[in-house]
Amino acid sequence: MSASLEVEFKFRDVDLASVEKRLCELHAVPEGVREEVDLYFAHPARDFSRTDEALRIRRIGDRNWITYKGPKIDSVSKTRDEIELPLADGREAWESWKRLLERLGFRPVRQVAKRRKRFLLDWEGWAIEISLDEVADLGVFVELEIVCQHEKMAAARDALSRLAAELGLQTSERRSYLELLLQMPQ
Amino acid sequence: MSASLEVEFKFRDVDLASVEKRLCELHAVPEGVREEVDLYFAHPARDFSRTDEALRIRRIGDRNWITYKGPKIDSVSKTRDEIELPLADGREAWESWKRLLERLGFRPVRQVAKRRKRFLLDWEGWAIEISLDEVADLGVFVELEIVCQHEKMAAARDALSRLAAELGLQTSERRSYLELLLQMPQ
Repeated sequence: MSASLEVEFKFRDVDLASVEKRLCELHAVPEGVREEVDLYFAHPARDFSRTDEALRIRRIGDRNWITYKGPKIDSVSKTRDEIELPLADGREAWESWKRLLERLGFRPVRQVAKRRKRFLLDWEGWAIEISLDEVADLGVFVELEIVCQHEKMAAARDALSRLAAELGLQTSERRSYLELLLQMPQ
Repeated sequence: MSASLEVEFKFRDVDLASVEKRLCELHAVPEGVREEVDLYFAHPARDFSRTDEALRIRRIGDRNWITYKGPKIDSVSKTRDEIELPLADGREAWESWKRLLERLGFRPVRQVAKRRKRFLLDWEGWAIEISLDEVADLGVFVELEIVCQHEKMAAARDALSRLAAELGLQTSERRSYLELLLQMPQ
């Protein structure tokens, strides 16, 4: 809702154990492990892949959210309008929301399920969130993220690049987990 | 959430004062008065008036809900499948939900605002919810409702019929407030 941005790098073909070891040496703070499930829906009348939109319900532990992502509104950055709202807690609420959306003609098309181990690291004065992800059907990934004001984007990106080098992360991946899943051979 | 059904009768051309008097004699328990606002949406691809469905967000004081109503599954009563789920509290959440639905192509079509006085009555062993409604632009109505398992629907309907006779309610109205508003001369 504010003017802050997520600057995010993702890497594939990673060795989670060695990344985690290096994070410990850098005194990163472990933030726990959690299961995250994103269930994406197709629209009853629009092709979201053409309109560049998305609708999903997200489950993190016992908590649920709904997220609408609008089309990218800027060709250079990945800026898009996003509306994320909390839903009632618990698995029963999750199932009811799924049923409600299905009744309205939305069809669940893809589920992204991951086990995410999170760390917080103070790096060059930036608060960096690091996620070690084991993604069902896709494998393991590391995400590095800074939330900052728009005007600090370039500096944040440079800091993330240096951290990536420090952690031995090389193979950058720009596609979302959803895109990767959709592009997999059936 | 479960396989329970709402069995509901509505009556128009009622004398609210005499119904209330009779409810007191039957020892109905007053449940308070509240303002309710229902904002109904049109579906992006389906004509809800043809499919006999409805989607609304409801505001009662500071609390918000979303409700999907499926087609009537019984020609006499207003029985239908219904999914009602709580949303986050407050006016900001209400506006965000309205915006989320609009982004998905749902269009707000009509608002129903009513002052509802509720009673709870133990009648022939059923817990019956009775609503005395003053509806903006429409007038006054009485609704009788039982929530029960699917297999008890016929028995619930019979109990409601006898209560309606007891309360002097005669002119049944199958149309929803939304339908009545939509059918009014402009």
